[in-house]
Amino acid sequence: MADIGRDEIARVTVLGCGTLGASWAALFLAHGLDVAAYDPAPGLAGRAAPAIAEARAQLAELGLAGQGALRFHDRLEEALAGTDFVQENAPENEAVKRALLAEVDARLPPDILVASSTSAMLRSAIVADCAHSERILVAHPFHPPHLVPLVEIVAGSAEVAARASAFYARLGRRPVILNREMPGHIANRLASALYREAVNLVAEGVASVADIDAALCNGPGLRWAAMGPHMTYHLGGGEGGIRHYLDHLGASQVRRWASLGTPELTDAVKDRIVAGVLAEAGSRSLADLAARRDAALMGILKARIEVAGVDD
Amino acid sequence: MADIGRDEIARVTVLGCGTLGASWAALFLAHGLDVAAYDPAPGLAGRAAPAIAEARAQLAELGLAGQGALRFHDRLEEALAGTDFVQENAPENEAVKRALLAEVDARLPPDILVASSTSAMLRSAIVADCAHSERILVAHPFHPPHLVPLVEIVAGSAEVAARASAFYARLGRRPVILNREMPGHIANRLASALYREAVNLVAEGVASVADIDAALCNGPGLRWAAMGPHMTYHLGGGEGGIRHYLDHLGASQVRRWASLGTPELTDAVKDRIVAGVLAEAGSRSLADLAARRDAALMGILKARIEVAGVDD
Repeated sequence: MADIGRDEIARVTVLGCGTLGASWAALFLAHGLDVAAYDPAPGLAGRAAPAIAEARAQLAELGLAGQGALRFHDRLEEALAGTDFVQENAPENEAVKRALLAEVDARLPPDILVASSTSAMLRSAIVADCAHSERILVAHPFHPPHLVPLVEIVAGSAEVAARASAFYARLGRRPVILNREMPGHIANRLASALYREAVNLVAEGVASVADIDAALCNGPGLRWAAMGPHMTYHLGGGEGGIRHYLDHLGASQVRRWASLGTPELTDAVKDRIVAGVLAEAGSRSLADLAARRDAALMGILKARIEVAGVDD
Repeated sequence: MADIGRDEIARVTVLGCGTLGASWAALFLAHGLDVAAYDPAPGLAGRAAPAIAEARAQLAELGLAGQGALRFHDRLEEALAGTDFVQENAPENEAVKRALLAEVDARLPPDILVASSTSAMLRSAIVADCAHSERILVAHPFHPPHLVPLVEIVAGSAEVAARASAFYARLGRRPVILNREMPGHIANRLASALYREAVNLVAEGVASVADIDAALCNGPGLRWAAMGPHMTYHLGGGEGGIRHYLDHLGASQVRRWASLGTPELTDAVKDRIVAGVLAEAGSRSLADLAARRDAALMGILKARIEVAGVDD
């Protein structure tokens, strides 16, 4: 793999320009990179341009006002011409991704990295038809990637993982590297584990949906915006840190694990969750709620910039 | 329970003045309430006063600079004289709490609410020796309570739950009400469910401890500082909201749940976590890390104040 070595990235191709692709494009542009955007659906520029502009305005508010050039392309080969990096955001359909990646792989020199944003698929499945599969990686963002820093990297080699990580780190992202592929990568597995218990508490009638949500975002969620669970217990272990915590309170964690629920997502449980969420939302539309979430996320990101280094 | 009706709370007794009691005391004082503090350990004022002063300075920075009067007492009966509300923070030892609550119960008129901060115990266990157990409740904060808004309420009646909730809400807290008692209440159960998978990912060697921590606090943790998991999926369901999410993606959640790990906290796993946390901490002491966490928490709380109403 001596030919995988290009690190000067000035132009990025964004394949698939729905919500996710538009967010990626804005991030690249705000860091001064040129973006070639492609989407097979007609009317690409009309759909994507407003979303990209809105995301760029948010990034400018965070101090990122780079002026990369944006161009929309109707043909894949044009979008790939002269590119230095590819971010693929096709629909989460294995056959679609597999065919697209194979076509991209066949058209590009083997030293160009090609990153898939897939959340649901394993790298091994989607690279199956690629001749140069070693340069294809998963780089899964947490939505929306222009604001949320996480990028989960699954690569075929440590070298490719390191090169991709360096690229995303230069964009202010926080790459994390998986040593091996796992369904759901890391973050969605953690989220899913938490959600299982959240559903269990609804199913068992312990509290309202609104109160269960409030318990998270007014409690542990506030801490987890600043540090992860292992470090949290390091600070919860007193003078002895994580060693003391595990030795003295590990047993109570294990007992707690045994008491967690394994709910079934029956129609009755679904109905209860839906009724509870609608009660929690009240008169606020999805658009209202999304605007509040984004405002909160922007505020939290600004706070994190001020106290930079929290998760270093 | 017609005699449980007092709502004018001007003076609060704080029983047990370690880290938790000091944080509660600061919160009450910053809202203009008088505090009578009691702790059986000698040297109370010398230990607790600096912690209370530090927490009051943080609250002043958040705009809460009430000037309640603080008094330390060597005798329980003095700390209880004329009180309107009791917040108990004795050690997490069932016999200790049970005896203390029984003594408090015997000394106070039955219309005074007595709240235990217990995280580990069930209300039914600790009120067993109280003649007026209906006014004894669990009000479990998330540490530190002067900053983190969550208070989990477990009461013997809806009336007591509502009265206590109204009190904490006036202090800017976010009370959540459990319909029935559960080990770990809500927030620690959610945290424990997430931690089980975080430990599993370490045990399975999927990523480093630092990267697993980073995946949370740069991804879902950022969202969860603004909204809970049910509402998050409401916004992740597109136009159809939570109903669409559950009907179309509920099955993939259930499959994910089935793939989650059930790790054993063996000595080898503990060693791996400890080594990983120490690598993550690097040269930063526990005090450094705690200062960063608190600075981040303050920043996030200020951001939430600016975008108030996120979790309403």
